[in-house]
Amino acid sequence: MSKKINAKEFRVESESKVRLGKWPTLAEPFYQSQEDYQSILKSQIKELSSLQQVQYASNQFALLLIFQAMDAAGKDGAIQHVMSGINPQGCQVFSFKQPSSEELEHDFLWRTTKCLPERGRIGIFNRSYYEEVLVVRVHPELLQKQGLANTGDLKNLWKGRYRSIVDQEAHLYRNGTRIIKFFLHLSKDEQKKRLLARIDEPDKNWKFDPNDINERRRWDDYMKAYGDCLEATSSEEAPWYVIPADDKKNARLIISQIILDTMNKLGMAYPKVSAAQMEELKAIRGQL
Amino acid sequence: MSKKINAKEFRVESESKVRLGKWPTLAEPFYQSQEDYQSILKSQIKELSSLQQVQYASNQFALLLIFQAMDAAGKDGAIQHVMSGINPQGCQVFSFKQPSSEELEHDFLWRTTKCLPERGRIGIFNRSYYEEVLVVRVHPELLQKQGLANTGDLKNLWKGRYRSIVDQEAHLYRNGTRIIKFFLHLSKDEQKKRLLARIDEPDKNWKFDPNDINERRRWDDYMKAYGDCLEATSSEEAPWYVIPADDKKNARLIISQIILDTMNKLGMAYPKVSAAQMEELKAIRGQL
Repeated sequence: MSKKINAKEFRVESESKVRLGKWPTLAEPFYQSQEDYQSILKSQIKELSSLQQVQYASNQFALLLIFQAMDAAGKDGAIQHVMSGINPQGCQVFSFKQPSSEELEHDFLWRTTKCLPERGRIGIFNRSYYEEVLVVRVHPELLQKQGLANTGDLKNLWKGRYRSIVDQEAHLYRNGTRIIKFFLHLSKDEQKKRLLARIDEPDKNWKFDPNDINERRRWDDYMKAYGDCLEATSSEEAPWYVIPADDKKNARLIISQIILDTMNKLGMAYPKVSAAQMEELKAIRGQL
Repeated sequence: MSKKINAKEFRVESESKVRLGKWPTLAEPFYQSQEDYQSILKSQIKELSSLQQVQYASNQFALLLIFQAMDAAGKDGAIQHVMSGINPQGCQVFSFKQPSSEELEHDFLWRTTKCLPERGRIGIFNRSYYEEVLVVRVHPELLQKQGLANTGDLKNLWKGRYRSIVDQEAHLYRNGTRIIKFFLHLSKDEQKKRLLARIDEPDKNWKFDPNDINERRRWDDYMKAYGDCLEATSSEEAPWYVIPADDKKNARLIISQIILDTMNKLGMAYPKVSAAQMEELKAIRGQL
């Protein structure tokens, strides 16, 4: 019997201090073998797929899943494995890389807002507007491209961005979007192993980007930026979860379970047919 | 010599009570004759055009002008006359009518966010997200189309919408967008005259919409909705102006002057060329 996954254990409570050094990158596994892992994931995906159908039919809530992590932490794999059983009509994935020049001419939330999921659907952001307080914070020279009037007071600028994000997420919550934010928490050693594999294994070569090495050198700056970000933006309405990511399989099981728990709490149901509508259906039935 | 237009006189101060009955729909004219009107408007447009060129070149600020009003208050005419001298490359007008089904599947700010002006440009919203606390407030049955989970507590819903709007406008302000909001304040009698003209004058027939009569019957409800809206959403960052609209010409002069005052306060200037860049320009000059 595997240990039960308790989503709360990975959740960053709102208004709490975050020191990422204290959060584990490796958790006790929730599976006992490869077969056990497959079987748990399969049953999770089955449940997720059926919840998504109710979500689609009831059309009251949108679900937005945000994935953020250092390179090689397993975002792509997690998205692929966890969402594999979902009807593609109810789910859309967006990856946000470097912003286009049109996007840079707008406020920093603009390009992701366009991609927000419709009611009844699941939207997945592989990276997101959070890059604006992570990579841009580690590389403030990127702000120059954004043509802002005043970038002299950086501390105030990040504070303003956290505020914009928290406000936007509260607005989305009020309007039926439920947001779950995953930070895949990888150790520096495990990243080294995975980057080496991208160099050594031919079928992983395509994933290697020499720039990842430069970003790796700024590891501590990134951890500071992530810590501050999680602390400032984890809320009741849109919580962050810190997922121990050194074990990919375990990470996937935890992520699926958190999604399932969140969806189950929404109390969604297939729309009820009224007595009058049922009469109408019966009448139409007679005509067929 | 005409009286000088004082923008502040028409501004709704933030946190102030608004009773629209106390705001004039007719102000002392700022022009003395048709010729005088033309001449003032012409010089305003000239100044606006040159300010817009600096705005475009300096590329630090976007300007968003929002127009809201009862039918026949003169929104279209004001936009046409005031913005006629602007380079179309620096200016874009969006009219928001009934939302599409795709738009209804998103939060109520989504469809207008897509149309926000880029830095360096002027965006004009002929109606806007404010419709969501005006026409939708007068006709709450429209909420049904929006598939929201909980529309039982309407008072709280409008409060949440005001909050979303104020937060979004503060976010835009922090990111370089300056917003001016115009409510064209028309008297019920003057509206009657203008609607009758749309019926009686053949070249105005196309503007007549029988539904305008239904909305006119809800006049008091609209005035209440506008009053509450202006009170809840006029801020330092994005002020509302109540424009006396019974005299169209006067309204246009007031609107232009408010835009000019706002743009002048931004302290925009053509980007300065550094000594090194100037040397480079000289070198290139030699090659031509």
